[in-house]
Amino acid sequence: MGAGMAANLLTAGHELTAYNRSQGKVAALVEKGARAARTVAEACGGDVVITMLANDDAVETVTFGEEGILASLPAGATHVSSSTISLALAERLTDAHAEAGHRFVAAPVFGRPEAAEAAKLFVVAAGEPAAVQELSPVFDAIGQRTFVVAEQPKAANLVKLSGNFLIASVIESLAESMALVEKAGVDKQAYLEVLTSTLFDAPVYKTYGGLLAREEFEPAGFAASLGLKDVRLVLAAGESLEVPLPVASLIRDRFLTLLANGGAHLDWSALGKVASWEAGARPL
Amino acid sequence: MGAGMAANLLTAGHELTAYNRSQGKVAALVEKGARAARTVAEACGGDVVITMLANDDAVETVTFGEEGILASLPAGATHVSSSTISLALAERLTDAHAEAGHRFVAAPVFGRPEAAEAAKLFVVAAGEPAAVQELSPVFDAIGQRTFVVAEQPKAANLVKLSGNFLIASVIESLAESMALVEKAGVDKQAYLEVLTSTLFDAPVYKTYGGLLAREEFEPAGFAASLGLKDVRLVLAAGESLEVPLPVASLIRDRFLTLLANGGAHLDWSALGKVASWEAGARPL
Amino acid sequence: MGAGMAANLLTAGHELTAYNRSQGKVAALVEKGARAARTVAEACGGDVVITMLANDDAVETVTFGEEGILASLPAGATHVSSSTISLALAERLTDAHAEAGHRFVAAPVFGRPEAAEAAKLFVVAAGEPAAVQELSPVFDAIGQRTFVVAEQPKAANLVKLSGNFLIASVIESLAESMALVEKAGVDKQAYLEVLTSTLFDAPVYKTYGGLLAREEFEPAGFAASLGLKDVRLVLAAGESLEVPLPVASLIRDRFLTLLANGGAHLDWSALGKVASWEAGARPL
Amino acid sequence: MGAGMAANLLTAGHELTAYNRSQGKVAALVEKGARAARTVAEACGGDVVITMLANDDAVETVTFGEEGILASLPAGATHVSSSTISLALAERLTDAHAEAGHRFVAAPVFGRPEAAEAAKLFVVAAGEPAAVQELSPVFDAIGQRTFVVAEQPKAANLVKLSGNFLIASVIESLAESMALVEKAGVDKQAYLEVLTSTLFDAPVYKTYGGLLAREEFEPAGFAASLGLKDVRLVLAAGESLEVPLPVASLIRDRFLTLLANGGAHLDWSALGKVASWEAGARPL
Repeated sequence: MGAGMAANLLTAGHELTAYNRSQGKVAALVEKGARAARTVAEACGGDVVITMLANDDAVETVTFGEEGILASLPAGATHVSSSTISLALAERLTDAHAEAGHRFVAAPVFGRPEAAEAAKLFVVAAGEPAAVQELSPVFDAIGQRTFVVAEQPKAANLVKLSGNFLIASVIESLAESMALVEKAGVDKQAYLEVLTSTLFDAPVYKTYGGLLAREEFEPAGFAASLGLKDVRLVLAAGESLEVPLPVASLIRDRFLTLLANGGAHLDWSALGKVASWEAGARPL
Repeated sequence: MGAGMAANLLTAGHELTAYNRSQGKVAALVEKGARAARTVAEACGGDVVITMLANDDAVETVTFGEEGILASLPAGATHVSSSTISLALAERLTDAHAEAGHRFVAAPVFGRPEAAEAAKLFVVAAGEPAAVQELSPVFDAIGQRTFVVAEQPKAANLVKLSGNFLIASVIESLAESMALVEKAGVDKQAYLEVLTSTLFDAPVYKTYGGLLAREEFEPAGFAASLGLKDVRLVLAAGESLEVPLPVASLIRDRFLTLLANGGAHLDWSALGKVASWEAGARPL
Repeated sequence: MGAGMAANLLTAGHELTAYNRSQGKVAALVEKGARAARTVAEACGGDVVITMLANDDAVETVTFGEEGILASLPAGATHVSSSTISLALAERLTDAHAEAGHRFVAAPVFGRPEAAEAAKLFVVAAGEPAAVQELSPVFDAIGQRTFVVAEQPKAANLVKLSGNFLIASVIESLAESMALVEKAGVDKQAYLEVLTSTLFDAPVYKTYGGLLAREEFEPAGFAASLGLKDVRLVLAAGESLEVPLPVASLIRDRFLTLLANGGAHLDWSALGKVASWEAGARPL
Repeated sequence: MGAGMAANLLTAGHELTAYNRSQGKVAALVEKGARAARTVAEACGGDVVITMLANDDAVETVTFGEEGILASLPAGATHVSSSTISLALAERLTDAHAEAGHRFVAAPVFGRPEAAEAAKLFVVAAGEPAAVQELSPVFDAIGQRTFVVAEQPKAANLVKLSGNFLIASVIESLAESMALVEKAGVDKQAYLEVLTSTLFDAPVYKTYGGLLAREEFEPAGFAASLGLKDVRLVLAAGESLEVPLPVASLIRDRFLTLLANGGAHLDWSALGKVASWEAGARPL
């Protein structure tokens, strides 16, 4: 994701310094005009530093680690976090950057790597209004549209996490209904065509419905272990806000069943396997 | 629904005899060229009789009642049931018509009254292949596309019911995520726009997401009591096929909460009220 | 159950006419002084007729069938139903007997066959107060204690069904916690001893905890298929009363998983198998 | 709890140094022969130090804090943790004490303050066998029976947490069944008497059933907020062991509903309020 976003920033005329743990990934950007940073600190010289990383741990390391962003960013500069992270970490980043005299904006994105390459991401941004406003050229360079949802940065992370919860709930409900109609003799692919031709004419039904109908769970586009992680983060947000999320609780349990039976590496649509087992695919 | 379907059959050049308990509803069709039947039996003189009724009870009455379809339909003629009914009733109709020398085809439809009027329904048909094949001109007259899903009529009813289950699961998951983001300070309408601009660009999310965001639960497009009925029928199908449907179980419980608290008449999107209560809208 | 109850009625000095579809079962009672009836009608000559049968179907047949109880019982006599039946049937019996000039009392019992033999049953009775009052000598003969819970007969059936729901919920929660502690290296038998030595010192924990710890699911004391039936009846009662029962919904789904995978004949404590599968007992 | 345990250790002839943040609580023990410690470090001079504290935070502070147990305990001495803590903390304690040359034994207890005073606790112990063995005189002094469940200390914490989960599941299933029978006209107190006279003759049903029947949720014996905390810890254990616990997930959601509606301070049996709301106690 980060590579596509960075390339589009260069295309839009921004000066860019790129850092990645594996220098190889930076080389392609250098050819397009980026400077290569050998350390996180070297990537913190501009007005804005953008992090696009795998999880909380990675963001914590580059931010709070020795010679990390917090220690290296000039006063008044902005840290834009585009990673899908927990609300707890978003709060910690908000507080730490405020104390250090930095601005902090959360700006997770919706879209797959191809969308990142094509500058077609959807950016969900939250933060202090002036800071968000000044980032417009940045967001315009990487995405097709920006939604400013709140002044509290963590709200943007919540919106992103809730999106993943909604996808998981589509997978789960399709998994159940496919197990049902299949046992009644209906072809799953035909069933999916009925759905996506009618009320469910949306990318999420086509993509995940197709994986479920074809039982195509490898290789994972998004692994079950990551699906579980995001559902856990949504549930943690629900707990801190005192909002029960019974469908999310149910999905969490089913991811655990999948993982306990060796499915951590499968695509998260492999929730379909759990529904099949329950419907009798694995008799006594 | 039935009025729109009948009008389009007339438009397509079919001869049509219409019956409704309230004769007034038939008058408009007579103006378009239909004959009015004063009894169910009088509507059974053609090659095909189509029933489009509210529920199992209504279908049972017109079919099995004195001078009903079963007693009145000529041998070799076809009963097409377009109502959303239980699998148990679909089985009973299949058996009774076979014994009486009739053909029976289940052909529930997807689409709202406006789609019925515009001949834009989606027809999901199941039955003996030759019988289904011969109905093509009928289905073409009322819908934009026909999906033949199985030879057992009840399979078509299952597909229809499962569609309603999937809608209910969209409502429920949206209700939960909206309660969550709202408590974090995100505007629900803005949230919905993020969703429907990205992965969730489908009619079902726009329609029900809009009702939820505006908390517009009256008047009901489809009442909570009917939503509960359909989820109950899906669960009954799951029980007879031995397929657990945990999301459907959960939704059933939440409809019961809604009904127990006076919400039977509200739109089924009022599951959003249950999510709001749980998130603290009605403190001790 | 019925044999033990009948023997104790004889012991207490009541006149008794016994009927069973298999005449052999009646012979032992005849030796103890009972008269044998060859038909249901022949068993309806006294002041009271007691039915103790397997399920709704059996009760419906002997009551509403040709020459059944309804047709044979003298006006003013009482039908005592001790079977575990649905509330819907209890209502139908209440209404039909009232119309026929009979009294109807629901009196399901708690206790296993040994308790029935030892006159140690617990009787849960509901019905018109005078009718229940006059039955005291009957209840005293078969049980150690009688609880009169309501004037509506069906309420007694609900209490009985809810008891089976509570047992199922003990099985399910123990199944989950045993799967958990076992995976952490704790011996299940030792774990059960901790529980039953402390807060959980009750017959239900000892009996079902023992079956779970020993994974002793055959032969069934009470089959999973019957467990599912009773949970379904409780859920149906909840639906007609508009009371959601989420734990019952969850248990229903797990019984379906068990049945779909070939476990209908196992003891209902085989819910423990479902918990084991989910915890990884059957890897991919 | 700690006061009772300490008094019994004195009674049994052990030398004891007591520490509490509020010195007042120590005074009573001094009268019985204890020495008062002004700091945690001063309480670490013996062969064994026992911690009995409210939660993870408190145990972390006294153990890892400056001049805490870890820094103060002599090599070869044993830390016995009797608090109800998370498995994650139990693991951290196990590792840290091993590294420091200490022994670590987890020994949570079952029983209320009165049982602690009467030396009637049940001790659930886990740790290195020799260390546990040498603690026999300690455990004998405070409890009526000791169960050694595993060599991994955290297994004892899991057994304790799972016990609280089982209590919560009794509360929840009783809450549901009472909402059900009450709506059918059955008196809740009478209903409870049926249950506790039969299969459910256990302290847990009597105690919590009584609170539910009387709707006596204040003052809290164990607050809903603490109930939620323990269920969360059980779920976290289930997640790290990959064991789904659907009943626990469901209970967590219901505690959140209770908290979101102002019930954090109520007894955890106030899950009964949630069941009442759902059954219609709070109409639109």
